[in-house]
Amino acid sequence: MPFVNIKITNEDVTPEKKAELIKGATELLKNVLGKNPATTVVVIEEIDTDNWGIGGETVTQRRKNGK
Amino acid sequence: MPFVNIKITNEDVTPEKKAELIKGATELLKNVLGKNPATTVVVIEEIDTDNWGIGGETVTQRRKNGK
Amino acid sequence: MPFVNIKITNEDVTPEKKAELIKGATELLKNVLGKNPATTVVVIEEIDTDNWGIGGETVTQRRKNGK
Amino acid sequence: MPFVNIKITNEDVTPEKKAELIKGATELLKNVLGKNPATTVVVIEEIDTDNWGIGGETVTQRRKNGK
Amino acid sequence: MPFVNIKITNEDVTPEKKAELIKGATELLKNVLGKNPATTVVVIEEIDTDNWGIGGETVTQRRKNGK
Amino acid sequence: MPFVNIKITNEDVTPEKKAELIKGATELLKNVLGKNPATTVVVIEEIDTDNWGIGGETVTQRRKNGK
Repeated sequence: MPFVNIKITNEDVTPEKKAELIKGATELLKNVLGKNPATTVVVIEEIDTDNWGIGGETVTQRRKNGK
Repeated sequence: MPFVNIKITNEDVTPEKKAELIKGATELLKNVLGKNPATTVVVIEEIDTDNWGIGGETVTQRRKNGK
Repeated sequence: MPFVNIKITNEDVTPEKKAELIKGATELLKNVLGKNPATTVVVIEEIDTDNWGIGGETVTQRRKNGK
Repeated sequence: MPFVNIKITNEDVTPEKKAELIKGATELLKNVLGKNPATTVVVIEEIDTDNWGIGGETVTQRRKNGK
Repeated sequence: MPFVNIKITNEDVTPEKKAELIKGATELLKNVLGKNPATTVVVIEEIDTDNWGIGGETVTQRRKNGK
Repeated sequence: MPFVNIKITNEDVTPEKKAELIKGATELLKNVLGKNPATTVVVIEEIDTDNWGIGGETVTQRRKNGK
């Protein structure tokens, strides 16, 4: 019954990679806490690099500055 | 003043259906807890079926397998 | 498979009221979008009035000022 | 280490305005609580006006009705 | 830079189990997408069983009914 | 009408500091995007240091190790 929300920057993540994340997060909850995979929900949200900030600047700015 | 966030898979939900969800959620908070509709916020997020997982696999995979 | 998150101020909401919210939100998703109740998850979060702001002030302040 | 999530309606917010929001939110956390900007994350989510409700109706409806 | 939010029911999860979840989720993002652990944030939220609903009823009710 | 969610570690933040955060976030949205303070909602969530992870370990562990 757990709910896992993964937010990442939107940078061409393939459906295969997303499937791996979902499988891995579901197994993690099963292995650590014994949670039932059948009712474990994982939602991935992809955020534009203009909309993600760290260190007070957007990821778009950081990439331009070689960070 | 409540805040309601509804996450659903992105599958051609019409503006009319979204308006119904918003109206219904707002009324629910009013009827059960007496919350003022004027300050009740409802946000619907539509998630790609590649990005939604349940049972350890994506909804895209489940649909292909007839689940 | 929808996920509904309801945030409200923490003001002695009874377990019965919470059960009503969960039942009502689940039925709303079923009636409007045909979603399966068995996999509809509803999570209620109760937020201290010191931690909830609207109009630039906390709900605690607003209550003191008779708003 | 704080995490700030800003949800706004999707109405042509420029990358410059988003950068200002991210800078401002990061400084707020630094000024008020002494949080380290280097690990402060800000995520902006833009929500379609069909998907945002207040007062029991969508923002799209409200705009049509001149609200 | 990813942000992972794990919501589970509040049922005596030990600090050790929480540390395992955080380590596992961080490694998952590193292994699948090459994300830097140093800026990967994981937040666990524990929700009272009265406040978590599935199948239209609270987890508290389900436990009483032997589900 | 914006919604701002601020997650921070739970470390004795006073009601006065919380009020400052709420005022500051509301003004930021007004100054940058012209948003109406009357319908701007800010919710602060305080997370136990056992439940917050960065760099693959909990904040509790990091504090012990002098990080």
